[in-house]
Amino acid sequence: MRNGPVPDIVVRRLPLYLRTLRQLQRAGYRTVSSEELAQVLGVTAAQIRRDLSYFGRFGKQGYGYPVAALIRELEGVLHLDRLWNVALVGYGKLGQAIAHYGEFEPNGFRITAIFAKSPEHIGQIANGVVVLPATEIERVVREQGIRIGIIAVPPEAAQEVAEKLVAGGVRAILNYAPTVLHVPPEVTVREIDPISALQSMTFYLDDRPSVAGNGQGEQSFADVMERSPVEKRPAAH
Amino acid sequence: MRNGPVPDIVVRRLPLYLRTLRQLQRAGYRTVSSEELAQVLGVTAAQIRRDLSYFGRFGKQGYGYPVAALIRELEGVLHLDRLWNVALVGYGKLGQAIAHYGEFEPNGFRITAIFAKSPEHIGQIANGVVVLPATEIERVVREQGIRIGIIAVPPEAAQEVAEKLVAGGVRAILNYAPTVLHVPPEVTVREIDPISALQSMTFYLDDRPSVAGNGQGEQSFADVMERSPVEKRPAAH
Repeated sequence: MRNGPVPDIVVRRLPLYLRTLRQLQRAGYRTVSSEELAQVLGVTAAQIRRDLSYFGRFGKQGYGYPVAALIRELEGVLHLDRLWNVALVGYGKLGQAIAHYGEFEPNGFRITAIFAKSPEHIGQIANGVVVLPATEIERVVREQGIRIGIIAVPPEAAQEVAEKLVAGGVRAILNYAPTVLHVPPEVTVREIDPISALQSMTFYLDDRPSVAGNGQGEQSFADVMERSPVEKRPAAH
Repeated sequence: MRNGPVPDIVVRRLPLYLRTLRQLQRAGYRTVSSEELAQVLGVTAAQIRRDLSYFGRFGKQGYGYPVAALIRELEGVLHLDRLWNVALVGYGKLGQAIAHYGEFEPNGFRITAIFAKSPEHIGQIANGVVVLPATEIERVVREQGIRIGIIAVPPEAAQEVAEKLVAGGVRAILNYAPTVLHVPPEVTVREIDPISALQSMTFYLDDRPSVAGNGQGEQSFADVMERSPVEKRPAAH
């Protein structure tokens, strides 16, 4: 078993391993090799062995990984052997879509508190949860012992909402607002940002005759990109 | 100006710099220091100077960056000095939310083709775009010269959809389906995966008396995490 803290980049890959292992289990696999996992995930077997080596007893080469046991181990490490209550803040188009997203509960998360600012949304009911005014965030989050918050408010309101959530005890925030949240070091934040994701891909799209007009900098990028296609691929995750 | 290919991790940060610069510009800034940018973005000034050094003329320390010129440069490098047509595949709850998401067009992307499988969705109109049958993907994408696709279909259908998009000419895919897509090296894929994001944060949430029951592996993680809070923070982006 490897020692030392687990790099966050490895932690981010664990849910993908778990998801893949569950798929393989449904497909009837009892053991799976790092090569098989690598093929499904589009990464190298070496990376999978390296990542799983943090878990000790599962890092052995040559033997297949026992699927069920590795699933249990990952569920334990990721604290997914329970259902987490989640607070959702924001009930506009995006918030409503999140509130009705069917994949949270099967994957360990249950939205048990929803908060909105506009009077038209307050009092509505989503999956049995009554939408409360944003002024109630800190109190309700504390009372329910909620540790996870989802922010789906306009960017200019996101920081204040984050501070209320943290004040109530939230330590993990999924941020859909296109703005950087400033939180204490004990709070983890992940962004869901389709715009930035799209804008970071157009960098690699360069099929315009007018490109040269954008100047030396870009031209040299285009050349470089042509020469090294591997650089055109994002990391698998 | 720095030479060599730009690492994808840097490319992923460029849209965040652009977004922040636009905010600062709206706030009246004409120049901005790497320290000011760093503070807003929650990263180090050194990282910003390092990242921007790929762009040559903007990498100078000591002087503030000229906001308007840096915005233009980043827009050029990211190929955001145009409006990109986008194909959306999938028109269930998620697809409909994406189709009506208001932030795409102001940020350089216009959904000009929508495809669905279920007859109830085909023929519907979203923002003036008629939902077409998925059998039309390759033809329509090619005819419209679309290079960007958004996948919002069930995971088991995502790979086939990706192959149709790529066959039509798509080279950048935003994948909302919780599955790994296998695409040619010239195609860039970014995942939007709130479940994995949440599951990678619960790793850091460890407030249960029952935790020890999950065994040595996890216990030692918990210890390690307690000792090195810095490891609890994901990279800013």
